[in-house]
Amino acid sequence: MLTFVTTNPGKVHEAEEYLGSVEQFDFDYTEVQAEELGAIAAHGAREAYREAGEPVIVDDSGLFVDVFDGFPGPYSSYVESHVGIERVWRLTEPEDDHGARFKTVIAYCDGEEFDAVSDESVRDGDPPVKIFEGVVPGTIVEPRGDGGFGYDPIFEHDGTTFAEMSTEAKNAISHRGRALAKLSEWLEESDRI
Amino acid sequence: MLTFVTTNPGKVHEAEEYLGSVEQFDFDYTEVQAEELGAIAAHGAREAYREAGEPVIVDDSGLFVDVFDGFPGPYSSYVESHVGIERVWRLTEPEDDHGARFKTVIAYCDGEEFDAVSDESVRDGDPPVKIFEGVVPGTIVEPRGDGGFGYDPIFEHDGTTFAEMSTEAKNAISHRGRALAKLSEWLEESDRI
Repeated sequence: MLTFVTTNPGKVHEAEEYLGSVEQFDFDYTEVQAEELGAIAAHGAREAYREAGEPVIVDDSGLFVDVFDGFPGPYSSYVESHVGIERVWRLTEPEDDHGARFKTVIAYCDGEEFDAVSDESVRDGDPPVKIFEGVVPGTIVEPRGDGGFGYDPIFEHDGTTFAEMSTEAKNAISHRGRALAKLSEWLEESDRI
Repeated sequence: MLTFVTTNPGKVHEAEEYLGSVEQFDFDYTEVQAEELGAIAAHGAREAYREAGEPVIVDDSGLFVDVFDGFPGPYSSYVESHVGIERVWRLTEPEDDHGARFKTVIAYCDGEEFDAVSDESVRDGDPPVKIFEGVVPGTIVEPRGDGGFGYDPIFEHDGTTFAEMSTEAKNAISHRGRALAKLSEWLEESDRI
């Protein structure tokens, strides 16, 4: 069975819609600093696999604003709590380009060899990790809507902010869902589930 | 002899003014995500000590803006390259409080026991680490001056931005210098040099 390394049971339930039964592992892995979510999740997956000794997935998500070369990106949660989404809107407003994307990556590690992600943080003897990415494109707008959480009120997709959507509508275009669908497909193709 | 874990020979020369002869160790330690510079440098020092097997120091610096609860703080370098200091000024300008501080921490590890920093990233068996902090208070202003680097043009101290100061004037109030002075004092007190 697949183990989802997370403190959030809601993520486990979302994963089960794509992967069948999933176990939760409440393990506080090391989050490294990196430009790319993939490098952060891969590092966490290697650490968690060493701890769990069975197939694990680790996810990471962020809002990437084009004109800021991806900022707040890997530090979205820190920027949300320290600067606030209203100020992220205020920072973006005077720019010509308001394009942005929500991204989720899922890192999978089961200790076996496969065509794996490699980055500068990989040391000799590290187990291989495979990365699956889900992306939803959108636009940064003035905050609208009461639903969702995090950056949802300032992220507009197809004319509606994520905070204006029903949970069902949002889940239907979820970046995490897109990453989970790719993982599920690969697990089946490679006879892992 | 003390080993400074850094890719920057300029830092080694500055350290030698306080500590006598210092060796440079060009080792790419893992930078973790954390609110506090101390936790990031401590993690690096533990990793570098395991690699070097002799007394090491690791430093980390950042600009902490009060009204943003420290942002950009530990991610100052990322924010500088992705958002730019002009936009950090623009973000701060409409706020009532423009107060900020430059901080440097130095983490020292020699594998011996002492009254050490402890944080949630510490695992059983980790060597103890001691943290020394240097802080310079100031104000975020519209960019002025051609000298220095990084956030220097928007950081004003006693009426002058760091980019308007001579290197000598800046070094005399350096946050890194303040941390190095504390480290030097402690090393002498504890008969380590």
